[in-house]
Amino acid sequence: MEAFFNLKTPDEVYKIIDGFSPVGEETVPLEDALGRVLSRDLFAPEDLPDFFKSTMDGYAVQAKSTFGATESLPALLEIAGEVSMGEAEEIGLRAGQAVKIPTGGMLPEGADGVVMVEYCTLLDAGTLEVSRAISPLENIIQPGDDFKQGTAFLPMGKCLRPQDLGVLAGLGFCEIPVFRKPKVAILSTGDEIVPVSQKPNPGQVRDINRYTLGALCRNMGADPIYMGVCSDHFETLREKAEKALLKADALWISGGSSVGTRDFTLNVFETLPDFTLLVHGISLSPGKPTIIGRSGAKPLIGLPGHPASALVVAEVFMTRMIAMLSGDTNAQKGVHTFKQATLSQNIPSSAGREDYVRVKLEKDGERLTAIPLFGKSGLISTLVGADGLVRIDMNTEGLYEGQKIDVMLFSHN
Amino acid sequence: MEAFFNLKTPDEVYKIIDGFSPVGEETVPLEDALGRVLSRDLFAPEDLPDFFKSTMDGYAVQAKSTFGATESLPALLEIAGEVSMGEAEEIGLRAGQAVKIPTGGMLPEGADGVVMVEYCTLLDAGTLEVSRAISPLENIIQPGDDFKQGTAFLPMGKCLRPQDLGVLAGLGFCEIPVFRKPKVAILSTGDEIVPVSQKPNPGQVRDINRYTLGALCRNMGADPIYMGVCSDHFETLREKAEKALLKADALWISGGSSVGTRDFTLNVFETLPDFTLLVHGISLSPGKPTIIGRSGAKPLIGLPGHPASALVVAEVFMTRMIAMLSGDTNAQKGVHTFKQATLSQNIPSSAGREDYVRVKLEKDGERLTAIPLFGKSGLISTLVGADGLVRIDMNTEGLYEGQKIDVMLFSHN
Repeated sequence: MEAFFNLKTPDEVYKIIDGFSPVGEETVPLEDALGRVLSRDLFAPEDLPDFFKSTMDGYAVQAKSTFGATESLPALLEIAGEVSMGEAEEIGLRAGQAVKIPTGGMLPEGADGVVMVEYCTLLDAGTLEVSRAISPLENIIQPGDDFKQGTAFLPMGKCLRPQDLGVLAGLGFCEIPVFRKPKVAILSTGDEIVPVSQKPNPGQVRDINRYTLGALCRNMGADPIYMGVCSDHFETLREKAEKALLKADALWISGGSSVGTRDFTLNVFETLPDFTLLVHGISLSPGKPTIIGRSGAKPLIGLPGHPASALVVAEVFMTRMIAMLSGDTNAQKGVHTFKQATLSQNIPSSAGREDYVRVKLEKDGERLTAIPLFGKSGLISTLVGADGLVRIDMNTEGLYEGQKIDVMLFSHN
Repeated sequence: MEAFFNLKTPDEVYKIIDGFSPVGEETVPLEDALGRVLSRDLFAPEDLPDFFKSTMDGYAVQAKSTFGATESLPALLEIAGEVSMGEAEEIGLRAGQAVKIPTGGMLPEGADGVVMVEYCTLLDAGTLEVSRAISPLENIIQPGDDFKQGTAFLPMGKCLRPQDLGVLAGLGFCEIPVFRKPKVAILSTGDEIVPVSQKPNPGQVRDINRYTLGALCRNMGADPIYMGVCSDHFETLREKAEKALLKADALWISGGSSVGTRDFTLNVFETLPDFTLLVHGISLSPGKPTIIGRSGAKPLIGLPGHPASALVVAEVFMTRMIAMLSGDTNAQKGVHTFKQATLSQNIPSSAGREDYVRVKLEKDGERLTAIPLFGKSGLISTLVGADGLVRIDMNTEGLYEGQKIDVMLFSHN
C-alpha cells in the first residue's frame, strides 16, 4: 500500500490533466463537422450577408419619399419594377419611386428602406399609396450585419454546434480545419474477465468496462479502439499495451483491484517509451487506485477494475482529459452541466477525500430532489438508476438533508 | 394571411407532437447501442453477479469462526487454500478454516464472509490470526445484488447511456432491440438559395438550413437525408417531396417566408398521400409560419426560411418530435436541460404569443447571468453567440432585469 503515500487531490489531478495537448489536426467536410473542435481561428472571407436585403414583403423606396406620409395624407409613389428572389434588380430606383420586393429580396440600387406591404395600397398598375413613413434602413439587413469581412467569427477550440455550421455554410466554408478525434485504446485486464459473447464459468464475469468506457469515449467525441481482454500476465499485458500505443493517442487499462495485480498496470506502463508517472492514487472515493502517466505526449491511464468505480473516475476526470486531447478550450472550465437540487437525506463522508455519490433526480412540482443511491461498492445497478453525481468536498464530513447541492449530470445524458 | 386565423399555442403544438409514434424496431450490436432507445422491456436472464463475490482482499471464512476476535484476543484459523481470480475453489470451507481470496474472487463453498487482509496476520504457512470479528455476509456481494434473474432492469423507451451498456454487457446481451433512428428528409426551398459550394450571385445566399437542421437531427439521434435545394416551382417541389417521403420517416421543408411562396409548402403537402393538416401557424416568435401535418404516420414540417427562425423552431419543437419518433419515453417530459440564471436587462414582449429570446450565459463567481442577444430578425450571428433560449410566456409582457429565469440550453450543447 506504500504506493499510495502520495495521493493527489482531485484539484491537483485536474491541473495535471490540463497539461495534455490536442492530438493533431485534420480537415473534414462541413457536413461532418458537428461536434468537432476548430483547430484554427476562422475569419469571414466576405460580408454575411453580402447585399442589402429586405426583411419584409413590401416595397423598396427612398425613405425620404415617405416622410410625412400618414393614413389621412398618404404618399403617392410611382411603381418602377419588381425584385425577384435571388436576382439583382437592374433598374436603379429614384426618389418618388417604389419597387415591389419579397422578404429576403435584394434591395435595388438607390433604395434605402422597405415599406411593409400592410401600409401600401395599389391605386393602379403604376401607382402606390403609402400610408406610413419609414426611416432610412428600416426593414433591411445591411451587408455584414451578421459578420463583416475579416471578423474572427469562430475561435480555435470551439466545439461546433448546429448554428456554427450554419454560419460556416453561409460564408462558404466547405472544408473545416478541426482537431483529430483522440483514439483511445481500451484494455480490460483480469483473469476472471471473459468477453461478453462467452458464458462465464463460476467465478468469471463478463467484460463490462469495454462497453462503459468505450461509450463514454464516444459520448465525448473520441474514438475507442478495443484491445480485448487480457489475463493478469505481465508479458502478455506489456505486449498488448505496446501494440495499443502504436495506434492510439491514449491507453486506458482497467483492472488490477486486488493486491496481487495492483502494481501490474504501473509496471507495464514503466516499460513503455519515455514514461513519466504523474498520479499514483487519488484522494477520491470511488477511484482511489487510479494511475495517470504519460508515454511521451500520450496519456496512460490505469482505472479501477470495478465497473462502477472505473466509470465514475472516467466521468469525473477522463471526460476532461478527452476534451483536452480534442483541443476543446471549454475543457478547463469543466465539461459537465450541473443542476441544483435539494438533498433528500444525509450523506456521511470522510474528511480528507472527495466522495462522489450517485443520485437520482426527482421533480416534485418546481422542486428538484436528489435522492442518494447507496449500495455496496462494485455494484453497477446504482449507476443505472442514477441521473448524476454529487461531489462531497474533501473538507466536509458529509451533506445534510434539505441542503441545496449541485448535481453533476452525466456527460451527454 | 387568413391562413393564420387559427394559430396554435406552443402547448397545443406539443400535444400534437406527442401524438406521433416510433418509426419501427431493429436490432443492433451492443457496441453500437449508445444513445439508442430500447424498443422492449428487458429482463435479467440470470442473476448479476451470479456468484458470491469478495469485495476485498482478505480471507474467506465462516463469520462465526471470528466471533469474539479482537486485537488482544485474536481467532486462530487453519488456512485451507487460496482462491484464484476467475476460478471456483474446489475444496469446501469448514468452521475454523480460512481461504485466501482476492477482490472479485468467488467465495468458496461453506464460507459466508471475508475478513479484510488488514486484520489478518499469517503466523505460519498454515495458520492465520484474525484480530476482528465479521458478521455474516460482510465484505461480499451476493448473487443478484445488482439484478435478480427475471427483474425488468431496463424499460422500453430508455435512451441507453454508458452505464446501461455496462449492465447489458454484464448480463450477456450482445444484440439489443432498439427503435430505428428516424430518417428525416431535409429540403431547402427558395429561388435565392444556392448550394454552399457555389459562389452566390448578387441577391443569392448559400443554403444554411441544410447544415443547421441536419446537425440538429444528428444531435437528436436522427439520420438526415439531404434532398438538396429546390426552386420555388410547385411541380419541382412536389416531385422532390414525394421522392423524399419514399425514403424518409419525416420531411422538413424550409423556406417560403415571402408572400408569393408562403402557401407553396402547404400546397405541396396537400398533394401527398393521406395528408392531414395539424398546425398552420404557431403563436410564437420567431417561427409563426410553421406548418405541421402528417402523410399517414409521417410528419411533414414546413419551417421558416430564415435560418435563425428555422433553427429556433427546430430546437423548441422538432427535438421533441424526433424523440417521439425515436420512442424515447422522456420526450414528453421535455428534451432540454434548463439552467437558472439572473437576467441582465429587461426584455419586452407582446402578450398573446410566446417569445424565444437568445441569451448568452456568463458566470460571475457563483452567479450565472443571462444576457439577451437582440438583433434584427433573420440574423444567425445571435444564435452563434448564444448558449440557450429564454421563453417568454404568452401571458406576460416581458421579463425584468434581475429576474430569475430558466434558460433552455441548446440540445447536446
